[in-house]
Amino acid sequence: MRFGMLSKSLFEGKKLYGNLGDYPFTAESLFRIGLALCAYLAIKGEEKPTLGVNVLDFATMSLAVGFMAGGGDVVVGEGNISVIHREEENALIFEGLEEIDLKKIESILFSRYNIPKKRGKEVGRLWIQEKKP
Amino acid sequence: MRFGMLSKSLFEGKKLYGNLGDYPFTAESLFRIGLALCAYLAIKGEEKPTLGVNVLDFATMSLAVGFMAGGGDVVVGEGNISVIHREEENALIFEGLEEIDLKKIESILFSRYNIPKKRGKEVGRLWIQEKKP
Repeated sequence: MRFGMLSKSLFEGKKLYGNLGDYPFTAESLFRIGLALCAYLAIKGEEKPTLGVNVLDFATMSLAVGFMAGGGDVVVGEGNISVIHREEENALIFEGLEEIDLKKIESILFSRYNIPKKRGKEVGRLWIQEKKP
Repeated sequence: MRFGMLSKSLFEGKKLYGNLGDYPFTAESLFRIGLALCAYLAIKGEEKPTLGVNVLDFATMSLAVGFMAGGGDVVVGEGNISVIHREEENALIFEGLEEIDLKKIESILFSRYNIPKKRGKEVGRLWIQEKKP
């Protein structure tokens, strides 16, 4: 058994578990995670962060919209950083990041830091490409 | 000139205008519009509301995620009800609905009605199909 909210971390390793529509797999919280992920990559120096997703569904689209709100582009397929939705596992798997990165993203999420959002042409775009074999 | 917020309607005819990232073209407000649209179609008796979108981008994905949260499916292509994003016009065009429908959706949006959201397998899905010519 875990010891209360303060010691509970959102990510388990590089995975985020949830049931669609329940926290943290609500549109709102996935949106915020996508936004925080984009902000983190921008802080690390990526000029135009790009996120790959393996599939487009409720979970990955919610995350993608947050990422795009932060100015990042999303590709369907592989990226340097990818999120894989394994529906049968109820898991989103974050690839291309270390666990320490996810801890830092979590601290952005739960801080009072007001994550900047982009406007107009600076909002990110979605690219649908053939999946690599 | 318009007479204040109370008489200002969100939709202009069947169109919603905005600049990406600014109200009403923020992820959050488009999410709520998609959710209200789905709820409205369910109230009208559609068992599994379906929404067509002409393209997948920040605006339509934000709307789609809200629609899916309400339990509706989204197809890329034409649906009985479609949302067309005309980026050059900064407009989302709602097709297959009358202006009176949009007024009712607006009243759902601005009422205190807590729009129900689905969970698990009842959350909507995205279908990417070939566009009809």
